Amino acid sequence: MRIMLQDAVDLARGAAFLGAAGGGDPYIGRLMLEQAIATHGPIEFLAIDDVADDGLVVPAAMFGAPSVMIEKLPNGAEAEHALRAVEKAVGKPACAILPAEIGGINALLPIVLAANTGLPVIDADGMGRAFPELQMVTFNVFGNPASPAALADETGNCVLIEASDNLAAERFARNTTVTMGAVAQICCYPMLGANAKRCVVRGTLTLALGIGRAIRQAREAHLNPVDALLAHLRTTDYYQHCKVLFDGKVSDLRRETSRGFTIGSVTISDSTERERLVVQFQNENLAARRNGRTVAIVPDLITILDRETAEPVTTEALKYGQRVKVVGASVPPVMRLPQSLAVFGPRSFGFDEDFQPIESLS
Amino acid sequence: MRIMLQDAVDLARGAAFLGAAGGGDPYIGRLMLEQAIATHGPIEFLAIDDVADDGLVVPAAMFGAPSVMIEKLPNGAEAEHALRAVEKAVGKPACAILPAEIGGINALLPIVLAANTGLPVIDADGMGRAFPELQMVTFNVFGNPASPAALADETGNCVLIEASDNLAAERFARNTTVTMGAVAQICCYPMLGANAKRCVVRGTLTLALGIGRAIRQAREAHLNPVDALLAHLRTTDYYQHCKVLFDGKVSDLRRETSRGFTIGSVTISDSTERERLVVQFQNENLAARRNGRTVAIVPDLITILDRETAEPVTTEALKYGQRVKVVGASVPPVMRLPQSLAVFGPRSFGFDEDFQPIESLS
Repeated sequence: MRIMLQDAVDLARGAAFLGAAGGGDPYIGRLMLEQAIATHGPIEFLAIDDVADDGLVVPAAMFGAPSVMIEKLPNGAEAEHALRAVEKAVGKPACAILPAEIGGINALLPIVLAANTGLPVIDADGMGRAFPELQMVTFNVFGNPASPAALADETGNCVLIEASDNLAAERFARNTTVTMGAVAQICCYPMLGANAKRCVVRGTLTLALGIGRAIRQAREAHLNPVDALLAHLRTTDYYQHCKVLFDGKVSDLRRETSRGFTIGSVTISDSTERERLVVQFQNENLAARRNGRTVAIVPDLITILDRETAEPVTTEALKYGQRVKVVGASVPPVMRLPQSLAVFGPRSFGFDEDFQPIESLS
Repeated sequence: MRIMLQDAVDLARGAAFLGAAGGGDPYIGRLMLEQAIATHGPIEFLAIDDVADDGLVVPAAMFGAPSVMIEKLPNGAEAEHALRAVEKAVGKPACAILPAEIGGINALLPIVLAANTGLPVIDADGMGRAFPELQMVTFNVFGNPASPAALADETGNCVLIEASDNLAAERFARNTTVTMGAVAQICCYPMLGANAKRCVVRGTLTLALGIGRAIRQAREAHLNPVDALLAHLRTTDYYQHCKVLFDGKVSDLRRETSRGFTIGSVTISDSTERERLVVQFQNENLAARRNGRTVAIVPDLITILDRETAEPVTTEALKYGQRVKVVGASVPPVMRLPQSLAVFGPRSFGFDEDFQPIESLS
């Protein structure tokens, strides 16, 4: 599997869908990816099974508040700065870059890092979606330390964290990111290939590309792109339980940048204004409640789409009056294990309810 | 010059005087120093001129809010943790430890670190007093980078900072320290011996020891220890311009732990309650104003002493009703250079006035 210049748009759109409104607007990441492909040629995706067991795999991501990233652009050198700091701390060069999350810009930036450093990028990630906090990855669920983790910003600052546990790593990384202006590039959870094979969510770069492609092809064929998207999701291994949760208009929006996150909720009403769906978010959409009743909840995916084009709307792009469809979809099975739900289930976000799979909610 | 077990009390008291009420209560540091001497034997002070020009000198200090340190004790391993992180980042082992500041506990902890790691400690520091922020050292005034700087806490966390400039290093170190619970051990400004020789304030460990000894000997001889202290200061190279600024009772105290500092002001009134001295502090005493008129201001030293015993009172030990004498003293000449005042003169602390030497204020 290799990614060509013309694939960048599809990959960015598919990643935006999987970002559940978070993971950062992929627009800047797409431009950076197109430049990387133009410079270095098509980029090969490496299957996780082709990674050497004793090779060093380094996950990479943008970290912080997506709403800040759209104004505070990366200069392109941060991720390599962070990578080199992690390599130095581990005492071993990386053999491959792994997207920490497949959602939003974070599907794209690791590919750019891989291209710029001449390393392969692994077709997998740590969640099959996007999540706001450092410990919310399968790498953590399966016992890998987040440290050494390095954060770098566009002015040349780099902070290396050796934390005693992964929740402490999240605290240090979060406050460092706030000091860096609420967005930074991070490399963390450096792992041997053997460990990565045990915990990654496989094939998600390919899946993101397929999702984006399904939306584009439906548009080109003048088909309903939301219907086409759902039809495509039903063919995948992970996202096959999916449905339109609501069809309406953004009637209220509460959104602030707080503690380094984009936090708030959006209300979507139907034409009668009697039915309403409220979606709560912390960078990513976390819970959708129709007239107060939960219809989808984290870690399942909740994505808000433009109702005509199926263009995913990120948290920071939400506006009053937008006509949208809200789609819910199941996450990869590894994300629903009890030990996974303990890390990023509803209670991890402060909700007083247990996870219920989207296929059991109506 | 070597320090014996019986010197620890004198050194701690002298350092507390030079701390200008900050630098941390030396009590815990004294216990740690006594244990280090009991374990490793008397500890040699190395003159800065005896340091190899190409040797790596690593300044060390406690960093954060002294009022927190009296409750959140170090476990003793943090400083070495930070030192090893800096050595690894520089790629060179340290040849000697340098106190970053001679005030308070920070005169003692670098000696403990030196003893525990088998390194010599240099008889010098970066200010001849104590200061609250990372850039407020002669090392910075003379152009040395604070990075790589490492902070470690008692739970095993270590954060390595490679900042683009020293003000950025202060921001990262401060927020990291707040994440660590408002107090941490830091190693920073790793320098070659040749660079250290150009910027350190020389002989300050010996000076601190002499100050503490003068107070103790006066007490033992039933002389007035404050008078004896002033007489001794007049024999030193740095602190010879000194005087009692006020004699009275603590009548008001405003103190809070904010932004990782101990911040506030203390009012001292005479027996008539007509005369009052207000001392403002940010960890350290910064300005003394008698009935509104400045009588001493940073970087000159302002220290509050128990009026009978000349015991220095740290910011966190201030209490309503204490009978005190407030002493002001000149700082080393290097601290009064224009480039030094630009870094830690009155305006650096938000005061709208220029520095005036204590000898020109009445």
